[in-house]
Amino acid sequence: MAPVDPSSDATVVETDAVVIGAGPVGLWQVFQCGLLGLRCHVVDVLPEVGGQCIELYADKLLYDIPGLPPTCGRDFAAQLQQQVQPFEPVFHLGCQVTALTRQADGRFDLSTSGCSQVLRCRHVFIAAGVGAFLPRKLTLAGLDRYAPASVTYHQLPTDGVSGRHVVIVGGEDAALQMAVDLASGSDGRSDNDRPASVTLLHRRDQFSSDDGILLARFDLLRRSGLLQVCIGQPVEPVESDGPGGPVLAGLRIAPPEGDEFTLPLDRLIVCLGLSPRLGPIADWGLVMERKQLTVDTARFETSVPGIHAVGDVVTYPGKRKLIACGFHEAILAAFAAAERDRGGPVPLEYTTSSKTLQGRLGVRDSVTNAS
Amino acid sequence: MAPVDPSSDATVVETDAVVIGAGPVGLWQVFQCGLLGLRCHVVDVLPEVGGQCIELYADKLLYDIPGLPPTCGRDFAAQLQQQVQPFEPVFHLGCQVTALTRQADGRFDLSTSGCSQVLRCRHVFIAAGVGAFLPRKLTLAGLDRYAPASVTYHQLPTDGVSGRHVVIVGGEDAALQMAVDLASGSDGRSDNDRPASVTLLHRRDQFSSDDGILLARFDLLRRSGLLQVCIGQPVEPVESDGPGGPVLAGLRIAPPEGDEFTLPLDRLIVCLGLSPRLGPIADWGLVMERKQLTVDTARFETSVPGIHAVGDVVTYPGKRKLIACGFHEAILAAFAAAERDRGGPVPLEYTTSSKTLQGRLGVRDSVTNAS
Repeated sequence: MAPVDPSSDATVVETDAVVIGAGPVGLWQVFQCGLLGLRCHVVDVLPEVGGQCIELYADKLLYDIPGLPPTCGRDFAAQLQQQVQPFEPVFHLGCQVTALTRQADGRFDLSTSGCSQVLRCRHVFIAAGVGAFLPRKLTLAGLDRYAPASVTYHQLPTDGVSGRHVVIVGGEDAALQMAVDLASGSDGRSDNDRPASVTLLHRRDQFSSDDGILLARFDLLRRSGLLQVCIGQPVEPVESDGPGGPVLAGLRIAPPEGDEFTLPLDRLIVCLGLSPRLGPIADWGLVMERKQLTVDTARFETSVPGIHAVGDVVTYPGKRKLIACGFHEAILAAFAAAERDRGGPVPLEYTTSSKTLQGRLGVRDSVTNAS
Repeated sequence: MAPVDPSSDATVVETDAVVIGAGPVGLWQVFQCGLLGLRCHVVDVLPEVGGQCIELYADKLLYDIPGLPPTCGRDFAAQLQQQVQPFEPVFHLGCQVTALTRQADGRFDLSTSGCSQVLRCRHVFIAAGVGAFLPRKLTLAGLDRYAPASVTYHQLPTDGVSGRHVVIVGGEDAALQMAVDLASGSDGRSDNDRPASVTLLHRRDQFSSDDGILLARFDLLRRSGLLQVCIGQPVEPVESDGPGGPVLAGLRIAPPEGDEFTLPLDRLIVCLGLSPRLGPIADWGLVMERKQLTVDTARFETSVPGIHAVGDVVTYPGKRKLIACGFHEAILAAFAAAERDRGGPVPLEYTTSSKTLQGRLGVRDSVTNAS
């Protein structure tokens, strides 16, 4: 487990549990913890709640959620978010858990990129799905040394684009949008803050988008010469000497036909979409099998006591990567955590009848008034 | 396993799978089997679909179904029933599976009380919940010998009540309704087909019902003398000699205070409500632990290959009797059955994207037309 940076001036926030991942199973983990009286903080690298429901099938219908008519991913995520409201989870969105350490008293400290707080808790639930949705990398030897000053992913380079020759890599919505915004000045920059040139680099002369207006604007800018298009595969970065050392000066390009050539540039924006990766969790020393966390089927606990894992990130005999299976896993994981706190069995109660559970759900008073 | 009665002239109906229990988990078993191309027959002792959702919390709200706003048991059962419609399950309601035998080819024959068909299938899924909801017995030594001619449970004795002294046992809705119907003639009998007297026997002079009209009718009949009330505990049956042997002539009653006495009667209708019992399943030789079926957590299979069990009827390490857990169990059991048929792994497909699954759900055509 990587240590929390001791030089950090992060404030420590104490809570019962931290859930890593705000997808459907992570949200359900919050709900089940809430029923058992455990308060949760939730960390997700995405800027909104919903995980794969938002990233992969926001507009596609889920037919196999028990008791639910066909519902699109976006609505299903919204309904789960509504359902956890009574338990007032604290969300840390746009944050990735980077380090986890165990304290002398057995509690865990989690630090994150993008959040200055250290989250201290007794229970960790990893509901990271297929991993954090991170920008797909352009893997060219030596390219990383120019990030983020001259090379960035899905955002502008930190050294700016004013007067620069900007190349955007990609052929889908995000790349097209970035190219159109920079070439047309619709990103809000003033005229004297514009790039010297904007070029879209893609492996073939075919661009896909469901957004007809975006494609039309792209075509117009391309025909008017405000936006260049370069077709080919980047092979390696080309450097030149600058006042402070080597600077990025171009990319060697292998076109579909003919000889390699150099595309000159001084800013590179890679927009190849998001790809799920487990990220730092893979480095915490938890036992894994084929990139999945190994858990038992009684407590859904990893090889480290107190760290549970549920949903698509886990493996066990019979495992199926279905949402309804993750819900079950979250229930048993929550009970295991509650039993660890209690040091013994936690009796099962039912939301149909339990005053305790209805109190935690915030529906007890209204029930009493109505009866 | 009890043999199917060879003298039976039952017709054999072949299907892929039989699901025992039409509660929420049994219905979800049908859904998951359907997605995998397995057709199901469903047997339940209750006259309607829904199991505990109908029997125990039809009007109570379930708060812990993932993604679902608070929903009463009746509505939840209806939604699940709607969800399985595409797979056209065949329901055998009001039937109890009595016997199960294995054929030479490995298939199972199930016979039921209340259904003349023998169901022949490759896979059995026991989703029997807390058991079949059967009438709670009045356990008095020797009473059984008079059933069902003079003693019955929740229905009229087969020898009729005309001109008879009828005693109904119980203090809740079903007993009150039976007493009121017989005493008032509102059961549709003609005047010369009426009981000579109707007496309600209950352990204390307190009767509970949410049905105000029923209570009012009961009070009116009681005050008018058309309906007698006897307070006390039945101790033993009293016999007398009849032309064909001993007949039931009364019950010894222990009143709350004072000496025992005999309540004369010749028909006894016991209405003590329904109580869940596992019934014949307990005699099939499946390995059990504390009245629960032992299953593994990868295939949710009992000790007999091909017989799976899911929901409240099973036990395994970590088991929680929650509906959402039963859903997971049904998914893994369905995959295990499909793999047995296929003799190897069954790839996971998603309803959001799979043409095969959407075809089975009957939604593929409309999707194609819309796109």
